[in-house]
Amino acid sequence: MSRGRFITLEGGEGAGKSTHAAAIRDWLQARGREVVLTREPGGSPLAEEIRRVVLQPWAEGVGAESEVLLMFAARAAHLKATVLPALAAGRDVVCDRFIDSSYAYQGAGKGLGEQHIAALERLVLGDFRADLTLVFDLPPEQGLARARGRGEVNRFEDESLAYMGRVRECFLRRAAADPRRCVVIDAAPPLERVRESLHAVLEGRL
Amino acid sequence: MSRGRFITLEGGEGAGKSTHAAAIRDWLQARGREVVLTREPGGSPLAEEIRRVVLQPWAEGVGAESEVLLMFAARAAHLKATVLPALAAGRDVVCDRFIDSSYAYQGAGKGLGEQHIAALERLVLGDFRADLTLVFDLPPEQGLARARGRGEVNRFEDESLAYMGRVRECFLRRAAADPRRCVVIDAAPPLERVRESLHAVLEGRL
Repeated sequence: MSRGRFITLEGGEGAGKSTHAAAIRDWLQARGREVVLTREPGGSPLAEEIRRVVLQPWAEGVGAESEVLLMFAARAAHLKATVLPALAAGRDVVCDRFIDSSYAYQGAGKGLGEQHIAALERLVLGDFRADLTLVFDLPPEQGLARARGRGEVNRFEDESLAYMGRVRECFLRRAAADPRRCVVIDAAPPLERVRESLHAVLEGRL
Repeated sequence: MSRGRFITLEGGEGAGKSTHAAAIRDWLQARGREVVLTREPGGSPLAEEIRRVVLQPWAEGVGAESEVLLMFAARAAHLKATVLPALAAGRDVVCDRFIDSSYAYQGAGKGLGEQHIAALERLVLGDFRADLTLVFDLPPEQGLARARGRGEVNRFEDESLAYMGRVRECFLRRAAADPRRCVVIDAAPPLERVRESLHAVLEGRL
């Protein structure tokens, strides 16, 4: 039995990642694949509990250093409990956010820097990488407006546009640096047109 | 105003660290010092919540990699919210467990290795170190018997004696390698005699 494929979705707020993740699952299932749909932070009971801790407001604040360590703690649990067993069993795994979000949010957005994230990536992921990463790109103003329209602005989304700009720029830079793994999809058009772009990418890449 | 002193207590289970931490506080206060008594994992609201998460049983298990990242996430929060502000304000900080426990429990006990812990130490602590570390040393058999006698065996204490032996050996090795920072105190005698040893060390070192 061959190993499943690991497909990650990245991008800022309001880009429709969770909708598109479900569309990828449907596309794969229609081609006979078994699919696990999951997300970060989260994806196992321990990792979901860590998600709850990191997303809630704390009077003391959550420093970027604690935040990134909590994200990687959740990631290690998620990999061990959910992702690696599914891939080994030949299932495809579709994951809403993964390592690129650590580079974008804590590394670039909050200024920890790329080397800080790279050190944690080496410790936790070794040479494990996604087979395909889809970066849903959207101007921060448009993404925040969409997220607020859904009434779904959490601690992370309630940040400044300058911060969101650094996050976006990091996603685009990483995608440009690794074109074998990453494809950027313009998420600004209406959802149905973005889905057409997505299907075209899946036809070409999978 | 001069910076306060950072004093850490280390050692296996049942060595009486929390009792001795209170004794150190009393000794310092009797000499006119303001003292913050704290512990790891924990010592700030966020860090105490992480402690709760890491110490509870999880059906999926808590892998050593997640565990050590949670410990360092709690440590980063504890430093930022509690330890560094107190030291900067001229208070002494007495802390029940710190970085040596990461080396001993996750590095040696659970086999992550010294380099894994050292990489996290560089990221989170930089060159921050304790001014004095007291290692309360006890054979694992005696420590476990004492902890069980208190009815206080948690997930960490309910481990094999071989594991506890690796933990002890690591504490002793680190103390021997850094005699300017570390003093080993024999915790096998009755509490009152250990306290006399502790007072003698404090008189000599502080």
